[in-house]
Amino acid sequence: MVPTPSPHERARVVVVGGGFGGLQAVKALADAPVDVTLIDRRNFHLFQPLVYQVATGALSPGEIAAPLRWVFRGQDNVRVLLAEVSEFDIDAREVVVLPAAPEVEPERIAYDTLIVAGGSAYSYFGHDEWRPHAPEVKSLESALEVRRRILQAFEAAEEVHDPARRAAWLTFVVVGAGPTGVEIAGQIAELARDTLPRDFRAMDSREARVLLVEQVDRVLTAFPESLSRRAEHSLLALGVTPMLGRRVVGIDADGVTLEHGDHTERIAARTAIWAAGVQASTLAAGLAETTGAELDRSGRVTVRPDLTLPGHPEVIALGDMVRVTDPNGEVMNLPGVAPVAMQQGRYAARVVRDRAEGRGSPPFRYHDKGNLATIGRAKAVADIRGLKLSGLLAWVTWLVVHLFYLVGFQNRVLVVIRWAISFITRGRGARLITGAD
Amino acid sequence: MVPTPSPHERARVVVVGGGFGGLQAVKALADAPVDVTLIDRRNFHLFQPLVYQVATGALSPGEIAAPLRWVFRGQDNVRVLLAEVSEFDIDAREVVVLPAAPEVEPERIAYDTLIVAGGSAYSYFGHDEWRPHAPEVKSLESALEVRRRILQAFEAAEEVHDPARRAAWLTFVVVGAGPTGVEIAGQIAELARDTLPRDFRAMDSREARVLLVEQVDRVLTAFPESLSRRAEHSLLALGVTPMLGRRVVGIDADGVTLEHGDHTERIAARTAIWAAGVQASTLAAGLAETTGAELDRSGRVTVRPDLTLPGHPEVIALGDMVRVTDPNGEVMNLPGVAPVAMQQGRYAARVVRDRAEGRGSPPFRYHDKGNLATIGRAKAVADIRGLKLSGLLAWVTWLVVHLFYLVGFQNRVLVVIRWAISFITRGRGARLITGAD
Repeated sequence: MVPTPSPHERARVVVVGGGFGGLQAVKALADAPVDVTLIDRRNFHLFQPLVYQVATGALSPGEIAAPLRWVFRGQDNVRVLLAEVSEFDIDAREVVVLPAAPEVEPERIAYDTLIVAGGSAYSYFGHDEWRPHAPEVKSLESALEVRRRILQAFEAAEEVHDPARRAAWLTFVVVGAGPTGVEIAGQIAELARDTLPRDFRAMDSREARVLLVEQVDRVLTAFPESLSRRAEHSLLALGVTPMLGRRVVGIDADGVTLEHGDHTERIAARTAIWAAGVQASTLAAGLAETTGAELDRSGRVTVRPDLTLPGHPEVIALGDMVRVTDPNGEVMNLPGVAPVAMQQGRYAARVVRDRAEGRGSPPFRYHDKGNLATIGRAKAVADIRGLKLSGLLAWVTWLVVHLFYLVGFQNRVLVVIRWAISFITRGRGARLITGAD
Repeated sequence: MVPTPSPHERARVVVVGGGFGGLQAVKALADAPVDVTLIDRRNFHLFQPLVYQVATGALSPGEIAAPLRWVFRGQDNVRVLLAEVSEFDIDAREVVVLPAAPEVEPERIAYDTLIVAGGSAYSYFGHDEWRPHAPEVKSLESALEVRRRILQAFEAAEEVHDPARRAAWLTFVVVGAGPTGVEIAGQIAELARDTLPRDFRAMDSREARVLLVEQVDRVLTAFPESLSRRAEHSLLALGVTPMLGRRVVGIDADGVTLEHGDHTERIAARTAIWAAGVQASTLAAGLAETTGAELDRSGRVTVRPDLTLPGHPEVIALGDMVRVTDPNGEVMNLPGVAPVAMQQGRYAARVVRDRAEGRGSPPFRYHDKGNLATIGRAKAVADIRGLKLSGLLAWVTWLVVHLFYLVGFQNRVLVVIRWAISFITRGRGARLITGAD
C-alpha cells in the first residue's frame, strides 16, 4: 500500500494548498529525495492572522503576502502550479486540476503521496443571502472590500445630516467574537477614536458605535474565562460594545436583527462584518467522497493519528479541514489555528521522509505553545501553557510572534515600520477607498 | 468681477482635483483668510510618477497614495468632499457635485473662486475597442490590472508547451515611448531577466520579448535627441526592443498590428500595455462650454496668463487640462508634467491671496528645473537646464527627487526600503495576482 517508487525514480509528492500547513510541508521536504508539486489557486501565501489589518487600512495587501514561487525559488525539487483542484482520482493516484493560467487545459498530476491542506472558510450558517451585506475578513479581496465599506461609511456620515441616518452609518456590527472578530472590532474602534477625528469637519467620528455580537456568553472562547473577561474590559475601554448571548437572525443593507432569549432586537447599521462560523474547505468533502472517510458537521474529514485517510496511507490531509483521531480512535480536539497546521505540515513531510527510508512514524502530537489574541494598542491576551498574560506584555508577545512567522524579510521590515508609525501617530497609512462600488 | 466678499464672510474657494496641482493650491492657501472645499472622486492623492512600479509588483498601492483627509487633517480651513463634478454653474458661481458616499443627494457648492485641476487621461486615438486588450497604467486599479496580466502571462508561459503559444505569452508590447512607456518596458524586462528566472521550472523567463512601440523616430521626445539615443541604448541593454516610427493600427486579444511606412506587421502578443496619447480631463470641456473658452484637439481649455478663464477672473484652471497663453496671447508650450501642475497650483493660491489683499498678480511663469526619466536599475536620463546626465548619476537624482515629492513620511520610508531591497536582491516584493479575471 505504501508507495515504493522504483529506485531510479524519485517519489512524487503533490501538496494542495499554500497556506500555513502546505508551506511547512513543502519546506520540510527540501532535502528529501522527492519531487514536489505545490498546487494553489493563488500565486501567494497569505499571512491570514494580519488580514484584518488590511481591512482597516493599517497594512497594505502586498505586505502580508509572499509569492509562492518566490518562497520556493531556491528549492529545486519544488514545482509551483497555479490551479484549482477539480477532482481527486484516488484510485489512479492523480489530482485533476484546472490551471489558473488562461487557456490552459485541465491537467492530471500523478502522485505517490498526496498532501491536502485546503484550510477553511467562513460559513454563514446556511444564510448565504447575508454574505453581500456582511463581507468576511479572509481573502485579500474581501479585506479590501471591508476596508472600502468602513471608510465609505465614515464618508457618508460626513455628508448625511439627518441624525438617525448618520447614526446608522456610524454603527458597525461585527459578528463573531473569536480572535478575528475581536481584532477587527478593536481596530474599527481605534480608527474612529484615534485616527479619524481630525480628518472630518461635519461629524465626530468618535460617535461611532462598534458592536461585537457573539452567540455564547463570552468573547474569545478558546481562552480561559478570566482572559475572556479581561478582553471584554479592554474592548469596552476601546469603545467596543460586546453583545454576548445574542444570535444573528437577519442581516440586510439597513441593519442586523438579533435574537436574545425571547426577544429580537433590530440594530440600524449600514456596515456589518462577518467573522463567525468556520467551514472546512470543500476539498475535505472531495476526499471523504472518494475514500469513504467520515465528514463532520463543519465539513472536516476525519484522519488517522498519522494524518492519513483510512485505507489510504498515501493520502494525508491536515490543518483546518481535518479532525485527527488519536491511537485509541478518539477525536482529538485541536483548535483551527496556524500553529496546528504548521506542525501538521512538518509532520506530513516527516511521514514522507520516514517512508522513503522504510521507517514508520509515531502518531502526530500537537505541541501547544499557547494562544494569543490582540485587542488594540498595547492590549492583548495570552495563554501560554497556563501562564495568563494580558495588557502590554501580551501585546509585545503578540507582535514578536506575528513578525517572526510573517514570511519574507521585506514584509517584516515594512510591517514593523507601519506598526511603529501607527503606534506613534495613531494613524493608519493605507486607508484608501479602492475597487468598484 | 473679482469676488469681493462682505467683510464678515470669508471668501469661499472650491478646488476640484486632489492631484499635484490641486494639492499645492490647497496647501498654499493654509494661512489665507478663505474657506477651501477640495473636491475629488477618490479619497487619496496618488503619486502618479510611481504608478508603473505598482504595475510590476515593485511597490504596493498604499505606498504611493496618501489619503486627502489625512494630508489636510491639520489645515482647519479645508473641507474635503469626495464627489464627482457633474456641472459648473458659472453664472450662479456654483459647482454641482454628486457625492461618492452612498445615497447622498447631489449638492451645489458655492464659490467665490473656483480652481479646477482635473488632470488628464490616456486616449486611445479614438479606438476605445483597444482599451480592454491594452490597459493603461494610470489609476491604481488599472495598474493592478496590468500587474495581474503581466504575472498571469508568465504563469501561462510556464504551463503552455507549444513554442508559438508560449512565445506569444512571453511577448509584451508597450505602446508609447514617453516616460511611462519607457519605465514600464524597462521594469518588465528587469522582471523577466533578473527577478523571475529562478521562480519558474518549465520555461525561461529571460526569453521574454519586450517591445516598445513609438510612432515617432525616437523615445522620450521631451528630451534632447542625444539623451533619447542614450535611453535607447539603455533599453536595448536591458532587453527592451524599441520599435520606432511605427503606428499602432490594431490591438486584439492575440496581438498588435503595426504600420511602418507601407508595411503592416503583426506581432503575436498576449499582453499589451497602453501609455500613449494624452487627453485632458472632461472637466476642461465643461469649462469651455460654459465660458466660451477655446478647446484644443487634446481637449485642453485655453486660459489667460494668470490661469483664469477669459471673461471669468473668478475661475482658474491649471495642470494637464489647460493651455496657458502668454501676455501677448501666444500659447505657451508647457509640458504635461507634475512640476508644471505644482507650480500652477501654488500660483493659483497666490492669485487668491493677492486678490484678498487687493493686489494684482504677475502672469504665471514656469521655472523649468529639468526633466528626468528612469529606465531601469542605475539607468536614467536627466536634462537639467541644459546639463545632460545619464546612467547612475541621473538615476540617483531621479530617486531623490521622487522620494522628496512623495507625500507622507511613512510612504517615503516604505518606498526607500522596497527600493533598497529590490536593488540588492533584484526582487520585486509585491507581485501578487489579485482581482477578478
